[in-house]
Amino acid sequence: MTQAIDRLKQASTAAFTGLKCKECGAEYDATAKHVCDECFGPLEVKYDYDVLRQTVSRETIEAGPHSIWRYKPFLPVATETPIDVGTGMTPLVEAHRLARQLGLKKLYIKNDAVNMPTLSFKDRVVSVALTRARELGFSTVSCASTGNLANSTAAIAAHAGLDCCVFIPADLEAGKILGTLIYNPTLMAVKGNYDQVNRLCSEVANTQGWGFVNINLRPYYSEGSKTLGFEVAEQLGWQLPDHVVAPLASGSLFTKIYKGFQEFIETGLVEAKDVRFSGAQAEGCSPIASAYKEGRDFIAPVKPNTIAKSIAIGNPADGIYAVDIANKTNGTIESVTDAEIIEGMKLLAETEGIFTETAGGTTIATLKKLVEAGKIDPDEVTVAYITGNGLKTQEAVQGYIGEPLTIEPKLDSFERALERAHTLNRLEWQQVLV
Amino acid sequence: MTQAIDRLKQASTAAFTGLKCKECGAEYDATAKHVCDECFGPLEVKYDYDVLRQTVSRETIEAGPHSIWRYKPFLPVATETPIDVGTGMTPLVEAHRLARQLGLKKLYIKNDAVNMPTLSFKDRVVSVALTRARELGFSTVSCASTGNLANSTAAIAAHAGLDCCVFIPADLEAGKILGTLIYNPTLMAVKGNYDQVNRLCSEVANTQGWGFVNINLRPYYSEGSKTLGFEVAEQLGWQLPDHVVAPLASGSLFTKIYKGFQEFIETGLVEAKDVRFSGAQAEGCSPIASAYKEGRDFIAPVKPNTIAKSIAIGNPADGIYAVDIANKTNGTIESVTDAEIIEGMKLLAETEGIFTETAGGTTIATLKKLVEAGKIDPDEVTVAYITGNGLKTQEAVQGYIGEPLTIEPKLDSFERALERAHTLNRLEWQQVLV
Ligand SMILES: [Zn+2]
Ligand SMILES: [Zn+2]
Repeated sequence: MTQAIDRLKQASTAAFTGLKCKECGAEYDATAKHVCDECFGPLEVKYDYDVLRQTVSRETIEAGPHSIWRYKPFLPVATETPIDVGTGMTPLVEAHRLARQLGLKKLYIKNDAVNMPTLSFKDRVVSVALTRARELGFSTVSCASTGNLANSTAAIAAHAGLDCCVFIPADLEAGKILGTLIYNPTLMAVKGNYDQVNRLCSEVANTQGWGFVNINLRPYYSEGSKTLGFEVAEQLGWQLPDHVVAPLASGSLFTKIYKGFQEFIETGLVEAKDVRFSGAQAEGCSPIASAYKEGRDFIAPVKPNTIAKSIAIGNPADGIYAVDIANKTNGTIESVTDAEIIEGMKLLAETEGIFTETAGGTTIATLKKLVEAGKIDPDEVTVAYITGNGLKTQEAVQGYIGEPLTIEPKLDSFERALERAHTLNRLEWQQVLV
Repeated sequence: MTQAIDRLKQASTAAFTGLKCKECGAEYDATAKHVCDECFGPLEVKYDYDVLRQTVSRETIEAGPHSIWRYKPFLPVATETPIDVGTGMTPLVEAHRLARQLGLKKLYIKNDAVNMPTLSFKDRVVSVALTRARELGFSTVSCASTGNLANSTAAIAAHAGLDCCVFIPADLEAGKILGTLIYNPTLMAVKGNYDQVNRLCSEVANTQGWGFVNINLRPYYSEGSKTLGFEVAEQLGWQLPDHVVAPLASGSLFTKIYKGFQEFIETGLVEAKDVRFSGAQAEGCSPIASAYKEGRDFIAPVKPNTIAKSIAIGNPADGIYAVDIANKTNGTIESVTDAEIIEGMKLLAETEGIFTETAGGTTIATLKKLVEAGKIDPDEVTVAYITGNGLKTQEAVQGYIGEPLTIEPKLDSFERALERAHTLNRLEWQQVLV
């Protein structure tokens, strides 16, 4: 592996220069390492922003590929040929109908429910992590996952020809298990919650020579989420929104969208602006929302119990950094019930034609709650981040969306059913009026 | 409605000038009409190619949106603001690993399994049809669907604020039913196969004033599929491939990819080239493959019985045109068994990280069969069209992709399981060798 790193250093023209402890500032070489030897703080990638300022412009980015790799100078890889399966550059849809319903003037949905190849924002972080894993000489990649990450790691490893072993809690949704197995990785279903899966994986990372995308490769991996900040800025015409709402699992996504905005300001790609950051959690797993509400500077771990399994992390690694960002940007962190999450999924589908998973329902329900509480101003240009696809969590809405009207293949059977449908709608309407 | 059309005519700057019978050439105004009064032939959209040659170039297209609407001059809509939810411009992935496995030198996958918003090529045709429906003054849109079209019509109608009533066979896959209901349309599940659904819808189209995307709006709707030809040409660097393989349901997709290539040649956007067109059907519903093999100039309808429900059309409207194109381009039409379809889905997932539905499995299995039969030359630049996502047909592969290894959250439990996995792989490997 040392040889691989040496080769890398010679070849590198990248602006990233190494790793740095987020707590004490200690610096390290860009190896597969995620914890500071000095203080056990998390390591982050370090960049030379002077190099970025001199080499990157709106024009160089726009001339790049239509994927996250148009932002390659801001990502911690050295290769000229990263793993590019079209990940990123998902639509930023102006949500006219949802905005009207909520009473907002300008609302956008950043729609990673259709991210490529596996329909969640995890494709961003995995594309970066596996590109880096290959550079560092790993032949087997792995992860601890709540589902989406397993899908993405298995798929992109298959495309890249890397061996793959992924770990999930045994009680995941069927779509997420099948959506991993189809790529034929080794799949370990762990009897326990995500936090137990994660602890086991930390042990395995110490005994097997594998690249765990969200453990020993975490500093590289997490940088991929910055592209959700970059893209929104570019898609808004090279400017920042006023307010963003994003789901909180480990808290990493939230902090990296923030970092993405800051880096674009730092390098002169957008004008400086104070963007408010609000976070969304499910009430059944809301350790970050609790810390925020109680003004604590530490996270008290919880046992998850919610349908929003993809964000059910009871002991979130970056939770406290998320609280910090919400506080300093004048945002909020709020939680919603499982019933509100289902309503959020339906609301987004009915108004905008976007079918999101439970995490996205959490975001929309939180958005609604914040608007109603006056914590988002109707005049703010607001972006809600939708991070995964509803086809993976079908169990959550089954039983809440009605049934088809079954008919015979005959005109009169159809006409009777249509009459019935109209009557139903009228009744529902009358109930709303009462 | 007449008023709406008048307004349209005045406003129109489009190159499309009306409708024309594919059989007898009779011409009609661009209304909601799909059958010729003279000969009962199907109507097609007519364009003024001189206008296109003078106004469209590679540069004007590249400067357009990253969606099907970059090809708007070639599409039958007049508005400057079509319904654009990011549909199209899906990745054309070079499939190195699958190519090696099959023995091809240059193979591409056109991946509409990640098309937006509902993960199938139907989003293309529906975006065009609903844009046109709005122009023609329809407030309710409808369709007869094998599943993907229902998902797409319901989603895009929701986004556009159109009322929606969709018809499906009652025995569809769960994911396709739920993936329609979530958008809250009126959903009619018809006890019968697709051909019965389609016949019922033709009757309904005569009695209700609705825009049926694939009946009275069919001439506009089907034009959306041309973008699958346009995009491949542009993504290959403004040139055509040597051979394409695409699934056959009604046959429309196949003929429109062909039309897309011809229009790009006609307008000077690519150099002329003889592209071979090969079609894929499931053995359990292969009326087009039968007609091709038996050298017939008519389609004998069949009763579908296959897991590839999305392409199970027993009486395909454009079947005979598909046979004609395969014949005149020196291509082939082949069918594969349900077992081969499942193997095709697994093969694509394991080699390229792309999870497609049964229709895509049909295409990959057919591709394999054609290569093995020497009907695709290893030197041909080949494009296989993947038209839908595997998360919608999970039933098809459940039971064929193994199970996770269930473990306790402990290192020794993991290590025993890993040992077991390695033994299994060795055994499987030995079976292959025997
Ligand atoms: Zn430190
Ligand atoms: Zn005619």
